[in-house]
Amino acid sequence: MADANDDLPARVLSGIQPSGTLHLGNYFGAMRQHIALQDEFPGESFYFIADYHALTTLRDAETLRHNVFDVALTYLACGLDPDKALLFRQSDVPEVTELSWLLSTVTGMGLLERAHSYKDKVAQGIKPVVGLFFYPVLMAADILLYKSSLVPVGKDQIQHVEMTQDMATHFNETYAKQAPILRRPEWRLSNTPYVPGIDGRKMSKSYGNTLPMFLSGKKLKKAVGQVVTDSTPLGDPLPLTRTNEAGETVKDNVYALIELFCDEAELAQIRTWYAAGKREGADFGWGHAKQLLAAKIDAHFAEARARRDHYLANPDEVEAVLRRGAERARAVARATIDECKRACGLMS
Amino acid sequence: MADANDDLPARVLSGIQPSGTLHLGNYFGAMRQHIALQDEFPGESFYFIADYHALTTLRDAETLRHNVFDVALTYLACGLDPDKALLFRQSDVPEVTELSWLLSTVTGMGLLERAHSYKDKVAQGIKPVVGLFFYPVLMAADILLYKSSLVPVGKDQIQHVEMTQDMATHFNETYAKQAPILRRPEWRLSNTPYVPGIDGRKMSKSYGNTLPMFLSGKKLKKAVGQVVTDSTPLGDPLPLTRTNEAGETVKDNVYALIELFCDEAELAQIRTWYAAGKREGADFGWGHAKQLLAAKIDAHFAEARARRDHYLANPDEVEAVLRRGAERARAVARATIDECKRACGLMS
Repeated sequence: MADANDDLPARVLSGIQPSGTLHLGNYFGAMRQHIALQDEFPGESFYFIADYHALTTLRDAETLRHNVFDVALTYLACGLDPDKALLFRQSDVPEVTELSWLLSTVTGMGLLERAHSYKDKVAQGIKPVVGLFFYPVLMAADILLYKSSLVPVGKDQIQHVEMTQDMATHFNETYAKQAPILRRPEWRLSNTPYVPGIDGRKMSKSYGNTLPMFLSGKKLKKAVGQVVTDSTPLGDPLPLTRTNEAGETVKDNVYALIELFCDEAELAQIRTWYAAGKREGADFGWGHAKQLLAAKIDAHFAEARARRDHYLANPDEVEAVLRRGAERARAVARATIDECKRACGLMS
Repeated sequence: MADANDDLPARVLSGIQPSGTLHLGNYFGAMRQHIALQDEFPGESFYFIADYHALTTLRDAETLRHNVFDVALTYLACGLDPDKALLFRQSDVPEVTELSWLLSTVTGMGLLERAHSYKDKVAQGIKPVVGLFFYPVLMAADILLYKSSLVPVGKDQIQHVEMTQDMATHFNETYAKQAPILRRPEWRLSNTPYVPGIDGRKMSKSYGNTLPMFLSGKKLKKAVGQVVTDSTPLGDPLPLTRTNEAGETVKDNVYALIELFCDEAELAQIRTWYAAGKREGADFGWGHAKQLLAAKIDAHFAEARARRDHYLANPDEVEAVLRRGAERARAVARATIDECKRACGLMS
């Protein structure tokens, strides 16, 4: 069958949770990839701040508004270029809810009942709302509305893209057999490092173990000081590994964090300091390792902090970026939804 | 708590299924009430043709478009006055899908799992799609979007209005505690007669036992001729009742249908003809009773048929009514959805 979507340029899409102050886990887990992708897919990188999705768990208007702004600010600070990537609020393109209804009419209940994310949340004892169950349909609509071809994912999100592929196929087979309307997206597994929190578990807001991205000076030193280590005395060799609660040998927390900011040559030298417990003849203990980490974080985000200060002083510029992104995204969305509606018989 | 909705005028809302050529069951079961309500609530009667809902079962664009047009045509033919009642396509106000998402984030899964309509369809062996499960949320959004105060219902729809009341309460309590946004609707049980189909079961498209509204002449006589009776010979008294499959004594099919079109004085006379098997000295058998019924149907819809012919020749006028209805409905919808979004934190 003729598929006009094959002629479209590659287009990347990702959603960003507006979950409060972003931390190193967010940065290395997603944001850095997003910003890199804008150069791989200039003009075709669509990033939406998932405020509709956030409502399934966040019920405070002020907090949500603040979080959305903070995420936008952080992306701009870290180098998102609005000329290359579209950044927009999900809810500024309400066509996504309309497409989600259309998809729901061709999606079997069984598909949603098998969704890990729903089963996990129920297992965690979260009293499920309908939105949580329906979530994969809205997510599919997010992807399909923009005729995205590529979705960068973590392992736990692969299933959502597969469900999206299924829904696109069902829709096309039901309503657009001759000329498929919805484009089949593919996932690309992001090559993301493990980012330990200050307690050694995966850095996550829900664990309360995060290192925010934009601390500096004393506050940063204090935060980094809380990273858990063993009690190796100053001057003794520092262990590069530790045993976690599961009994596995993993990297030492401080080293694992330092690794995120250094190239291999630098790391080789740092490993010699760990092994000796010395640096250039002087003692090199946990305190020094942490100072080194703090200096790395401080330097890495120096430029971003400056840009962030600029946008904090000029919130209208952030808003303008979001509006411009929404305008461009909505033009694409309208074209898709019009095609879909006509195919279903909804427009005269 | 201050409820600005208390100051709004009463507003009636109902949805109309675009399920093909309308029949006497549709007319006496809903349409007649809808048209009467436009005089009780002039300017405040909102009737939408439920094309989004139809997609859960109808997957043919041409059929859906035709059915939507046919329903609009029939309402106009039967006296819907666009100056008193808004008639519009559900999908011309896509804000309803957006509100349904917002409602889904405050609606527990349990509420939907208890919905009769879903349980019934599953019991009938219908392979459920997500849309069928989600249906009560979209229906609640239909009602709440227009700040409707009154929903005319059949007995089987009371639960849907009750679910809508629950969702409105949840939403207001979650996001608008100080000043409720969503208006609590009430249901009003429509006083509808029993309309038997030609086989004596309830007249329903799904039973294939309908009498269309707009037949006349030979076609009408032929259709009425198919109404099932017993084999009472011509000249014998005709029974006014029969025993149905459930063993209950119910009205004779022909008489039950005649009843829909006559006042009590006329009916008293017809009953004497039934009892005697004679009319003014001549025999009065089933054929005569059916002739009488056909004449009643023909006369009752004569004016509507003429108007229908006019609109059939001028489809643009039907389309203009739908567009005007959608425009007015959408203005109300936008105001509601904007209030809701602000309350959730979705707008900056």
